[in-house]
Amino acid sequence: MALTISIDAMGGDFGPLVTVPASLECLKENTGLKIILVGDQGVLKPLLLDVIAHYSGRLSIQHASECVGMHELPAQALKNKKDSSMRVAINLVRDGVADACVSAGNTGALMATAKFVLKMIPGIARPAIISTMPSIHGHTHALDLGANVDCTAEHLFQFAIMGNELVKAVENIARPKVALLNIGEEAVKGNDQVKTAAKLLENSSLNYVGFVEGDSLNAGHAKVDLIVTDGFVGNVALKSIEGAAKMIGHSLKASFSKNLLAKLAALIAYPALKSFKHRIDPRLYNGASFLGLRGLVIKSHGGADTLAFKTAIKLAEIEVRKDVIRKISEHVEQALVTGVRS
Amino acid sequence: MALTISIDAMGGDFGPLVTVPASLECLKENTGLKIILVGDQGVLKPLLLDVIAHYSGRLSIQHASECVGMHELPAQALKNKKDSSMRVAINLVRDGVADACVSAGNTGALMATAKFVLKMIPGIARPAIISTMPSIHGHTHALDLGANVDCTAEHLFQFAIMGNELVKAVENIARPKVALLNIGEEAVKGNDQVKTAAKLLENSSLNYVGFVEGDSLNAGHAKVDLIVTDGFVGNVALKSIEGAAKMIGHSLKASFSKNLLAKLAALIAYPALKSFKHRIDPRLYNGASFLGLRGLVIKSHGGADTLAFKTAIKLAEIEVRKDVIRKISEHVEQALVTGVRS
Repeated sequence: MALTISIDAMGGDFGPLVTVPASLECLKENTGLKIILVGDQGVLKPLLLDVIAHYSGRLSIQHASECVGMHELPAQALKNKKDSSMRVAINLVRDGVADACVSAGNTGALMATAKFVLKMIPGIARPAIISTMPSIHGHTHALDLGANVDCTAEHLFQFAIMGNELVKAVENIARPKVALLNIGEEAVKGNDQVKTAAKLLENSSLNYVGFVEGDSLNAGHAKVDLIVTDGFVGNVALKSIEGAAKMIGHSLKASFSKNLLAKLAALIAYPALKSFKHRIDPRLYNGASFLGLRGLVIKSHGGADTLAFKTAIKLAEIEVRKDVIRKISEHVEQALVTGVRS
Repeated sequence: MALTISIDAMGGDFGPLVTVPASLECLKENTGLKIILVGDQGVLKPLLLDVIAHYSGRLSIQHASECVGMHELPAQALKNKKDSSMRVAINLVRDGVADACVSAGNTGALMATAKFVLKMIPGIARPAIISTMPSIHGHTHALDLGANVDCTAEHLFQFAIMGNELVKAVENIARPKVALLNIGEEAVKGNDQVKTAAKLLENSSLNYVGFVEGDSLNAGHAKVDLIVTDGFVGNVALKSIEGAAKMIGHSLKASFSKNLLAKLAALIAYPALKSFKHRIDPRLYNGASFLGLRGLVIKSHGGADTLAFKTAIKLAEIEVRKDVIRKISEHVEQALVTGVRS
C-alpha cells in the first residue's frame, strides 16, 4: 500500500538538518512511502537538488514561507502564521494529499493548528497525546501526556476509548488491558476525578483492570497495555522519567570514568554497555500521536536527532497502515450512539 | 545533645527483622542517641535480652498490643487500634518522651494517626510529605509526595513555606531556590492551581525561581533546592522515577548477563558497577517527613531493609538536631501574622 506523509521540514531544534536526512532514510527503507517536505523552498531545494530525481516522484517539496518558533504562543502562531511549514503540512492531511503529518515543532502550536485545521472527531471533547514507553514487559502506551491541563472523569473515559482503539490496531490485541494512573491500587485511593473515571470504565466494554501507580509506566508488576491519566500528571510523569534516566546515565558515566581502572573496565564492558544503551534508547520511543482529531498528526520531540525523527515517521507509517484514525472515529461514534457504557 | 527517637518496631513489610537491627546500628554509631522500640514485648524482649543491658539506658521497649496492617484503612486503624505500635510511638512524641518517631507502616494510617495525636500547626491547612531525591546537582527536596490528592494554590503556597524552612535548616542555605512543578517553564503554561500559586510565591519573601518540569526532580539544567507540587502529581512523579530506575537496572543487568563475554565484562567492571549502584541507591534516600504537624514523624518506605531504615532514623536525628518543627511553627506563625506575602 502506498502512503504519503507530509513533514514539517522546518520544525524542531535542528529543522532540515534532521528532518531531511530522516526522511531520506525512510524513503530508502520503504519503497511504498511518499514524502512531502514542507518548508522554505529556498532552503530545501538546494539541499535536495539531486535526490528528488533519484526518488522519482516519491519525494517532493511544498513551499511554506513561514516557520513557527519553538516558544511562540499557540494562539499567535495560529493567527499570524497561516503559511507556516507546520500549518501547510497539516493542510495536506486535511486535503487528503497526505495520510499523516509529522512535526518536531512547538507542541502547543502544533496541537492548536491541528485542532483548527483538522477539527475534532464528533463526540470527543478534548484531544489527547499518546505515546509508548519502554517497560520491563516490553512497552506501555500512555495518554494524555500533556494536551490538557484540567480533565474531568468523562475526558479520561474518552481518552481510554481512543487509546484502546489505537492499542488494538497497533499491537493486534483484541482486548488491551486498560488502567487508570493513581496514587495507590486500592479502590479507596485517589481524587474524585479518577474514582469517577474508574466507575465509568468498570461499566464500559473495555478490559479495565483498575488503578496502577507511576511505576507501572516502566516497571509495573503486571503487564498493562494502556495507562490513562490527565495531561498535567501524564506530562510530569513523562518528564520525571526522562530526568531519572538522564541522572542514572550521568551516574553510570561518572562511575566508569572516575579512574584509569574504571576507564579500562568501560572498554572491556563496551559491548554490554552498548547493548544496555540500545535497550533504553529514548530515540527508539520518539513520536506521540494526537488523538481525537479527524486526521493523523505525529509529534516528534523537539530535540530529536535523525534516528529519533525516523522513529516518529515510522510511527506515522504504522498508524496509517493500521487505519487508526478511522477505527477511533467509528468506535467513538458507536460508543456514543449504542452506549459502550451499557 | 542527647535525643530520643521512638520506633514503630512492628511497622513495614519486615517489622522487627528490619527495625531492630537498624536501631542497634544507629545506637552504635551515635552515642548521644536513645531509642524506644514500640511494639509487642512478647516479640521484642526475647530479641533484645542481652543488648538492652549493653546499651545501658539508651535502648528500651514500650509495649503496644496491636499492629496496623499495611492495607488497613486509615480511619479504621485510627478508630480500632488505639494500642497499635504506630499510635503508641506517636503518643511518645506528643508526650515529650521522644523527639521524633520513625515508622515504616501504612502511610495513610500513619498520617491520620499523626494528625489526630499531634495536631496541626495553627494556620496550616494540610500536612504534606517531603523527601529528597538524588539529582545530577546533588539532591533536591520535593513536597507534597502523597498526603493530599486535591490541593488549592493556597495549599501549595503553605507547602512552600514549610519546605523552605526545612531546607534552610537541614541544608544550611539562607535562601533556598523554590520552584513549582509544572508542564512547561513559561508563565502561560499549566493549570489555574499552579498559576495562582506562582503569583502567591512571587509576592512572598521566598526565593521563588519559577516553574520547573518533571525532569528537574533528578536532572534539571539548573540546581533547585525545593520543588513544590500537589500530592497526586508528586506521588505519581516519585513512583514514575522508581519505575524508571527499576526498568533501567533491569536492562543493565540483562545486558551484563546475556552471554559469557558480558558476564566476564561484569566481573571486570564490578568496582565501577558497584560505585554506580551506590550513587543511585534509593536506600540512601529513604525517609520522608510529615510537615505541618506539631511533632516530627518520619515515614520509611514499607519495603525498607536495614540500611534503608537506618537512613530514615538518621534523617530523624538530623531534623531533631536542626529543630525543624519549631522553626516551621515559628515561621508559619510569623508568615500568617506579619504577612510573608507583603
